[in-house]
Amino acid sequence: MKLNILGCYSATPRTFTNPTSQVLEIRNHLFLIDCGEGTQVQLRKNRIKFSRIKHIFISHLHGDHYFGLVGLISTFRLLTREADLHIYGPKGLKEVITLQMKLSDSWTNYQLIFHELTSKASELIFEDDKVEVYTIPLQHRVYTNGFLFKEKEGERKLDMNAVLNEDIDQAYYRKLKQGFDVENNKGKLVKNDAVTLPPPKPKSYAFCSDTAYDEAKIPLIKDVDVLYHESTFLEKNANLCEKTKHSSAIQAATIAKKANAGKLILGHYSTRYDDISLFKTEAETVFNNVELADDGKIFEL
Amino acid sequence: MKLNILGCYSATPRTFTNPTSQVLEIRNHLFLIDCGEGTQVQLRKNRIKFSRIKHIFISHLHGDHYFGLVGLISTFRLLTREADLHIYGPKGLKEVITLQMKLSDSWTNYQLIFHELTSKASELIFEDDKVEVYTIPLQHRVYTNGFLFKEKEGERKLDMNAVLNEDIDQAYYRKLKQGFDVENNKGKLVKNDAVTLPPPKPKSYAFCSDTAYDEAKIPLIKDVDVLYHESTFLEKNANLCEKTKHSSAIQAATIAKKANAGKLILGHYSTRYDDISLFKTEAETVFNNVELADDGKIFEL
Repeated sequence: MKLNILGCYSATPRTFTNPTSQVLEIRNHLFLIDCGEGTQVQLRKNRIKFSRIKHIFISHLHGDHYFGLVGLISTFRLLTREADLHIYGPKGLKEVITLQMKLSDSWTNYQLIFHELTSKASELIFEDDKVEVYTIPLQHRVYTNGFLFKEKEGERKLDMNAVLNEDIDQAYYRKLKQGFDVENNKGKLVKNDAVTLPPPKPKSYAFCSDTAYDEAKIPLIKDVDVLYHESTFLEKNANLCEKTKHSSAIQAATIAKKANAGKLILGHYSTRYDDISLFKTEAETVFNNVELADDGKIFEL
Repeated sequence: MKLNILGCYSATPRTFTNPTSQVLEIRNHLFLIDCGEGTQVQLRKNRIKFSRIKHIFISHLHGDHYFGLVGLISTFRLLTREADLHIYGPKGLKEVITLQMKLSDSWTNYQLIFHELTSKASELIFEDDKVEVYTIPLQHRVYTNGFLFKEKEGERKLDMNAVLNEDIDQAYYRKLKQGFDVENNKGKLVKNDAVTLPPPKPKSYAFCSDTAYDEAKIPLIKDVDVLYHESTFLEKNANLCEKTKHSSAIQAATIAKKANAGKLILGHYSTRYDDISLFKTEAETVFNNVELADDGKIFEL
């Protein structure tokens, strides 16, 4: 699992910082999460192959989280993309993208499939044989979801020495990986756990931005391996959190602690601060494993 | 008159090139012309004061000419702008901007005044005591206008030696600048042109992008001082001009020549070309005074 931060600053794009966007690589998927203005240039700078992006998740319709989407869609068109593109985001997103395509008389030659979200409860919005994605309802000024990405439990691994010792025909390897007991070439029933090893523990990643401090989401992200949680403000401006429905570094850390997260990544810093290291310092007073997102940074998880 | 190119490449923003946007400084106005994605960052990089922009002109609703507008409007809001903002562009622009403000529940605290354009004939869309702006109907795949910016004739200049010699009271200086004859302190009628100099010749700038080769606009831009004309293609790809309704460098130069322009600035280069100097070379086979736009370049006109 790999997380590539394209932008992690709040509000406005600036010369050296970008609004929210990140790419999560998980089980061979490249999921784009949020798409602030300039995301397509950040994708280029980070050498991410456009064609590998098939699913885009938009948390909410504040500009710093989606103003780059229409441009990315239109660049995909110019690059003669053919693969379907799935977009998950709040109701209204389809209307605004479609209107802009209509006005420019520029329809995509690939399928654009909108999955508009309206539910205030968590729901499963994507699933294949390797990964599940759930919404995490967040508390913000407009309808907002975070997203929980969960690997499914993989197949068991063959313990090749044991498998060869037991003289099992290759035709049974697939069944072994699926957890079945099989017969060996001598007609003996071999117990599955004698010749296989358990699959690696499935990993999970929760993206929570933008949101006020809200313990309601804790059961959804309980024991998550990595939690990205917005921390717009430092303690000295914590009074702004309630009005703007954002979180402070300490509030983000409190959620990480109560959810028993493995690691906390902070982001969505207000552009009023010159030194983001203070976010880490403050969060570490509550939670141990804190890292700072920054534009272009890659986390191997 | 000063022209600051923020972006002058066609189609998609890339790591080192930007879609169309430029700032024309004319008689103390700062007019923003087109606003591709990333324009607000280009404004910052070029150290242009956001608050000085009060009028934005959008040629057409292809993304590379306006996808940066909604972000700029929303950044103005975050910077607590109070001054009115006038936006001139094709019908539909108001709907798409308003829809995005509605979806984000983020209304500007300043006045946003849309001047939606629908006419296929040239019209005067802005006028004050110093400047006039006319549309230049262009021929493109969607409804498109170029813009002609014309200084009005200024006041006559006082020839101070002559004025003092003639012993004219200061109270009459204003009338002199306006071209009137006045009486001096001895009761003698002084002819205006004996004590004043003609005003500097008013300058004009025409922005023509995007457009197919079209001589219909020539009367509108006749004798313009500076013509910015799109040149998407070099001769080797000139066959693409008709289908895409764009121009080649030679076509742009032909328009400049037939319109008797003072200077031609080329831009809107297709991103397929690594070396833009060939645009100049080709245009110069037709017209003498050719310059190449490039991102960040400033023309003192």
